[in-house]
Amino acid sequence: FLWCASCNCGPDPRKREALIRLEASRRTGGNITLNEREKLLDGKLQKLKQYDMEARQFPPSMHFFKAKHLIDQSPVFSLLQKMPKGAALHVHDFAMVGVDWLVKNVTYRENCYVCFTDEQTVQFIFSSGQPASHPRCSSWTLLRSLREKIKNSTDLDNSFIRNLTLFTEDPDRAYPSQDTVWKRFEQAFLVAYGLVTYAPVFKDYLYEGLRQFYEDNIMYVEIRALLPVTYELDGKLNNKDWSMRACQDVVKRFTANYPDFLGARVIFTIHRGINATEAVKTVEEAMTLHRNFPDIMAGFDFVGREDLGRPLWYFKDALSLPEDRGVNLPYFFHAGETDSQGTDVDQNLMDALLFNTTRIGHGFALARHPVVKEMSRKMDVPLEVCPISNQVLKLVSDLRDHPAAVLMAEGHPVVISSDDPALFGATALSHDFYEAFMGFGGMSFNLGTLKELVINSLRYSSLPSETKKKAIEVLLVKWDKFVSESLS
Amino acid sequence: FLWCASCNCGPDPRKREALIRLEASRRTGGNITLNEREKLLDGKLQKLKQYDMEARQFPPSMHFFKAKHLIDQSPVFSLLQKMPKGAALHVHDFAMVGVDWLVKNVTYRENCYVCFTDEQTVQFIFSSGQPASHPRCSSWTLLRSLREKIKNSTDLDNSFIRNLTLFTEDPDRAYPSQDTVWKRFEQAFLVAYGLVTYAPVFKDYLYEGLRQFYEDNIMYVEIRALLPVTYELDGKLNNKDWSMRACQDVVKRFTANYPDFLGARVIFTIHRGINATEAVKTVEEAMTLHRNFPDIMAGFDFVGREDLGRPLWYFKDALSLPEDRGVNLPYFFHAGETDSQGTDVDQNLMDALLFNTTRIGHGFALARHPVVKEMSRKMDVPLEVCPISNQVLKLVSDLRDHPAAVLMAEGHPVVISSDDPALFGATALSHDFYEAFMGFGGMSFNLGTLKELVINSLRYSSLPSETKKKAIEVLLVKWDKFVSESLS
Ligand SMILES: [Zn+2]
Ligand SMILES: [Zn+2]
Repeated sequence: FLWCASCNCGPDPRKREALIRLEASRRTGGNITLNEREKLLDGKLQKLKQYDMEARQFPPSMHFFKAKHLIDQSPVFSLLQKMPKGAALHVHDFAMVGVDWLVKNVTYRENCYVCFTDEQTVQFIFSSGQPASHPRCSSWTLLRSLREKIKNSTDLDNSFIRNLTLFTEDPDRAYPSQDTVWKRFEQAFLVAYGLVTYAPVFKDYLYEGLRQFYEDNIMYVEIRALLPVTYELDGKLNNKDWSMRACQDVVKRFTANYPDFLGARVIFTIHRGINATEAVKTVEEAMTLHRNFPDIMAGFDFVGREDLGRPLWYFKDALSLPEDRGVNLPYFFHAGETDSQGTDVDQNLMDALLFNTTRIGHGFALARHPVVKEMSRKMDVPLEVCPISNQVLKLVSDLRDHPAAVLMAEGHPVVISSDDPALFGATALSHDFYEAFMGFGGMSFNLGTLKELVINSLRYSSLPSETKKKAIEVLLVKWDKFVSESLS
Repeated sequence: FLWCASCNCGPDPRKREALIRLEASRRTGGNITLNEREKLLDGKLQKLKQYDMEARQFPPSMHFFKAKHLIDQSPVFSLLQKMPKGAALHVHDFAMVGVDWLVKNVTYRENCYVCFTDEQTVQFIFSSGQPASHPRCSSWTLLRSLREKIKNSTDLDNSFIRNLTLFTEDPDRAYPSQDTVWKRFEQAFLVAYGLVTYAPVFKDYLYEGLRQFYEDNIMYVEIRALLPVTYELDGKLNNKDWSMRACQDVVKRFTANYPDFLGARVIFTIHRGINATEAVKTVEEAMTLHRNFPDIMAGFDFVGREDLGRPLWYFKDALSLPEDRGVNLPYFFHAGETDSQGTDVDQNLMDALLFNTTRIGHGFALARHPVVKEMSRKMDVPLEVCPISNQVLKLVSDLRDHPAAVLMAEGHPVVISSDDPALFGATALSHDFYEAFMGFGGMSFNLGTLKELVINSLRYSSLPSETKKKAIEVLLVKWDKFVSESLS
């Protein structure tokens, strides 16, 4: 009592400090030791963050379409743009290139026809002669003639851009539900389809995609690709082998022009609406591609809205085939991109792990599955977290509520990616990095968090281990350069 | 190879089942064994849930103001209304009674004056003569005269109701930010203030509050109370002792009329805007009240918007006083009602536990604090989760994203409460139970979840252990009756 009377009882401040430090050590990057220069940059970064945190509007709490102009002005964002970000591990083939390029470059090429559907969208096709009409679509008009007729084609081009992206000023009104936004999402894909499956554009698109990612300081990309049939001007069709060879060629050509770019690999994907028989055929196709194109083919995945598609367990026979046959086919499953708790689809996360997935696409539902969360941690299977995609597709509104905030606070393995940046009007990766860094971490994340995230992006890539090791070394050289330049 | 050729390799379905069961056993209620009748009811409940899950609009994903009419029609909701819910452990003194009662009953009493402020709100006062004018307010008008003058007072009464609640048809437009909604929230409190601090109304309000909670099948309430100065018609003022005695009297009178109602206790609260010196005085006051009214006074807490108020650590000297003096003053701190990660305020959760809090009000940020989460689990300190409040005050938009979904999946101790049901237009507890049950759990939660939640509400109450034990027995009898009646 005497002791108490002369002191302040209550919590020991040293114990409190220790708890704060313990919690800091748990989060992503919490065990990274920063060198002196990094500490200096971190100090600068914390000040810049404070400024964004205290602004009247905090971008991660707003819809990206409304927040974009604020993010673009943020000095934190500008730093993240310059930061070498390593790899983008979750992007889809036809959502990589800003749609401006599709409209201003591709639709201005010779032999491009357009038609207008009865759902107020458009379709494109390249053809040497007048193409046969599509159902529920106007007859095909040669774009060059149309543009000559209307003189000023700015409005037309803008309407194309609107058709190709989800961007709108009032997203809450335009997309009141997940159903409406997914419908528009799939429509936008279809609009691009006729352009990007034209064989010459297919190659140019990939090249331009790599260029835009490279420009955003990314050194390696893994692309979920549908590998659709491509067509030539005379109507001749090319198969998946052609597409794989095209990818090989483009990547080779690109890395020749940009020697510090490491390359790209393909994850072959198919829509999860297929049935069990089609799935067996597709997995066999994937095994063949993986055998024939081992340098560029990384593995297999399903795409499409998880809530409406078939659950992974439905495909169990097809997915067991490689093991059955003693063949290695890595999986990279989208899983847990849902908030339908306790439904069949909600088991996809567990099944992805049971089928030994290499990474998990999204894993938005993982925090609500403690046992599966522990499995993925033990197996060191990371989540590919795509904040803007999850927000635009209405899984979460305020990005501070994104479950990755919880997972990263626990140091769960994650990489940041962008899913479909072209459809959201985002840069290749920097906008998603901003949302993740500021939204998931607030003032808690630091330069160590960023360093771990960019190292993760290569560590969890599908690259062979020797290449991976070298890639991380190259990245760390770029990183040190970035730190120095950001301090001067 | 031979073995593989004749079988399906791939995951063992029994292992998969075991994982699903393990995960189910972790979540809230996962270890509760349902008896035969309960299993029957659970089957019925799961079917009702399915119906709500598959409807075009899922209420927990929508703002409560837009979802309320859908919830009111749901058979799941109607079951939850009938369910004995045990205790409501987190409600505020002047937000318990549906505002209709304030307008239709209280403002129709004799000597009620109104004035109209220059911020388009109203104030009320009871007075035997013309009250002195308030600044920034019209002169006081006797409501009875005003109503006689305007003949039809429906519009007037509706405008009062609008002033007293946050309810509006288009909440996203009316409350674009946390700042705007908190401003309206505090304004609405002020509108009620002149009515509820009139001594006779103070007592009637509490009685009516208990009645409305009782009607919603609640048997016990713990009320966060500011214990403000109350006034008599002649201007005489009453202190906190008067308020405590008033509470004692009302509870005694109420339990006499409703013998199966267990009672109510008070958690004395003060606004977190006070300074350190005022805090010392207030904690001393709380100790005195706790000594003088041990039957009804449960402990102490701070109220007001956490982001703008002072952090708990600022009050460390005041909060250490009871321990200093060898006095027991239980704390029931609001903490973690924020998404300002990594700020001083974000340490409130840890500090609440370091100051040995009995429960945590909200704890919205807890899932992002893994070390603090483990502390609260080890110390068995539950969160008081108030889903509708968190949504209306804009911490989370889609309630499936509420962090309690994560915590309950892990079986973290929680109770469900309603914070300020009157201001949100909600019932005492049933609407919050609906949001929690359907929103946090989807198809995963079952009757066991509900049973654990209602038992928790008494287990984690401040009642003395003997009373608590008996209360749980009474609750379980009510529960069995509820199960039987719901099956017939
Ligand atoms: Zn994707
Ligand atoms: Zn409260």
